[in-house]
Amino acid sequence: MHIAVLGATGVVGQEILSVLEQRDFPVTTLLPLASARSAGKTVTFRGKEIEVTPAGPDSFTGVDVVLASAGASVSRELAPAIKKSGAILVDNSSAFRMHADVPLVVPEVNPDSLKRHTGVIANPNCVAIILTVAVAPIHRAAGIRRIVVSTYQSASGAGLAAMQELQAQAKDVLDGRAVTPKALPHQIAFNVFSHNAAIGPDGYNGEESKVMAETRKILSDQELAITATCVRVPVLRAHSESINLSLERPLTPERARALLAEAPGVEIVDERDSNRFPMPTIASGRDSVYVGRIRRDLSQPEGYGLDLFVCGDQLRKGAALNAVQIAEALVGVAAR
Amino acid sequence: MHIAVLGATGVVGQEILSVLEQRDFPVTTLLPLASARSAGKTVTFRGKEIEVTPAGPDSFTGVDVVLASAGASVSRELAPAIKKSGAILVDNSSAFRMHADVPLVVPEVNPDSLKRHTGVIANPNCVAIILTVAVAPIHRAAGIRRIVVSTYQSASGAGLAAMQELQAQAKDVLDGRAVTPKALPHQIAFNVFSHNAAIGPDGYNGEESKVMAETRKILSDQELAITATCVRVPVLRAHSESINLSLERPLTPERARALLAEAPGVEIVDERDSNRFPMPTIASGRDSVYVGRIRRDLSQPEGYGLDLFVCGDQLRKGAALNAVQIAEALVGVAAR
Repeated sequence: MHIAVLGATGVVGQEILSVLEQRDFPVTTLLPLASARSAGKTVTFRGKEIEVTPAGPDSFTGVDVVLASAGASVSRELAPAIKKSGAILVDNSSAFRMHADVPLVVPEVNPDSLKRHTGVIANPNCVAIILTVAVAPIHRAAGIRRIVVSTYQSASGAGLAAMQELQAQAKDVLDGRAVTPKALPHQIAFNVFSHNAAIGPDGYNGEESKVMAETRKILSDQELAITATCVRVPVLRAHSESINLSLERPLTPERARALLAEAPGVEIVDERDSNRFPMPTIASGRDSVYVGRIRRDLSQPEGYGLDLFVCGDQLRKGAALNAVQIAEALVGVAAR
Repeated sequence: MHIAVLGATGVVGQEILSVLEQRDFPVTTLLPLASARSAGKTVTFRGKEIEVTPAGPDSFTGVDVVLASAGASVSRELAPAIKKSGAILVDNSSAFRMHADVPLVVPEVNPDSLKRHTGVIANPNCVAIILTVAVAPIHRAAGIRRIVVSTYQSASGAGLAAMQELQAQAKDVLDGRAVTPKALPHQIAFNVFSHNAAIGPDGYNGEESKVMAETRKILSDQELAITATCVRVPVLRAHSESINLSLERPLTPERARALLAEAPGVEIVDERDSNRFPMPTIASGRDSVYVGRIRRDLSQPEGYGLDLFVCGDQLRKGAALNAVQIAEALVGVAAR
């Protein structure tokens, strides 16, 4: 396969290259594309240095699949040229996610939706991916009526500059130096803050609105009630989520645990005796969505409420891995 | 007033001394008490060094109020002697909080309950204090039916050793050294984890069970449905809480904001245009409970659901300040 990675020098682009290598994706040629700012840079793939090409409408001749992670405006700008070239666009940006003719795919959750693509497949928001991998098995078994989710989101969601800012700021704070936020609007070291996406007229920020709309689309359930509160925490690359579920039909925590133990992409970490549950130090650099704190919600009638705590690597399952899994499904590579 | 501070060398004890000074509490004599381990140590109060006395049953003669923050077992052990001496015990531990004859007091929320004390008044769990200050005005106006709360708790709740561990670990991680958790069971730097209190048979940890039971007691509402998920984050001394409310009677976000703007102990930080909301860097070292992200919960019928994000200093309003406010109410010092 002739694969282009658009945004190859970014933190997600770099992770896509790692995932393609690690999963032995059948790459014949790899074309790393980036903005003019990255001209002259190289990326490493399978031990070889490859020069980055500035992305433009003429970049896609002969390409089979474009894995794009260069932001919504770049995706919007280049999508017509990609389509014209005959390549399939797997887009990590929010540009096309809610378009009716664009499947929004988490391969463990809604693989069948992929069949309906017309050249563009959207990779969902990282919080929505991690959330739906964890709750889809419960939704199928018991019908989720309502979700209340609060997030603990890592700096990686805001890119490499935010990750570096977290580390540099932590050092500044420890050394007693004043902190000047740049990549993020507030101090991130030793602090937490409401996600910095712009607030809409309904009072939700853009990240929360994405999580809510995309979760409904991925689960194919427009009736699903959901409210999200998205918060950044001083963690490098794994997102955690505190999830509260209201169910249509009764389900015991034991049955939920059994369903999740069988679920693709899920690993249970629920060690009550040793107080060990999903956390970023477990999830970082790993592929699974870790699920724990599986318990009856005592604020709802028995059987109709569950609490979970979930953690997944934002750069892998939340972005690069999910995109590569979509590409694998497209080209018929056996699922791993 | 003759005031004893039990646990005077601990991080909450030290904060109690600061708060007594800053609020100009009418202290005639200050008696700092601690365990035998602190023998020989001194504390500073109003510019004077005072030697710490090992606490024992004979420590309380002539004392009017004991502000205790030395843990539940010490409080249980010394309570009979304190009672016998005629002193009033304001106890920051969980030892007596759920006793029927012990008021559990947040002065802004349930000051009247103080009148029913029989020598012991309990200072609530830090999460419950911050939560009830924020939601009590809404409960009075609209009747809260159910609360879903997820916390972002600072290291200070686990004492000075945990705060120092967070700082030392952050340095270790930045310098590429391996981390060995001691005060807390898991790495806290650049990580988040489910609160380390032991998990009960219902699957909730001890912290969550306290928050749930104490919130009902403080709000005098045993029918209140509540589920809590308590999580530690790498923050030094302020707790944040993502709060979802279901209401009995309709209340607009605008009306909730107006009620909170008038509420004692509350400061609103809800700047949607500049994306500035409550966060530890705002709350740390401050007395107020900061409330923001006040919005309609789109997952519930209009008027019947609200989301909030709240932040308060765990050592001040979550512990020392609330205890001193209780003492002020007891001795008739005008509220500040």
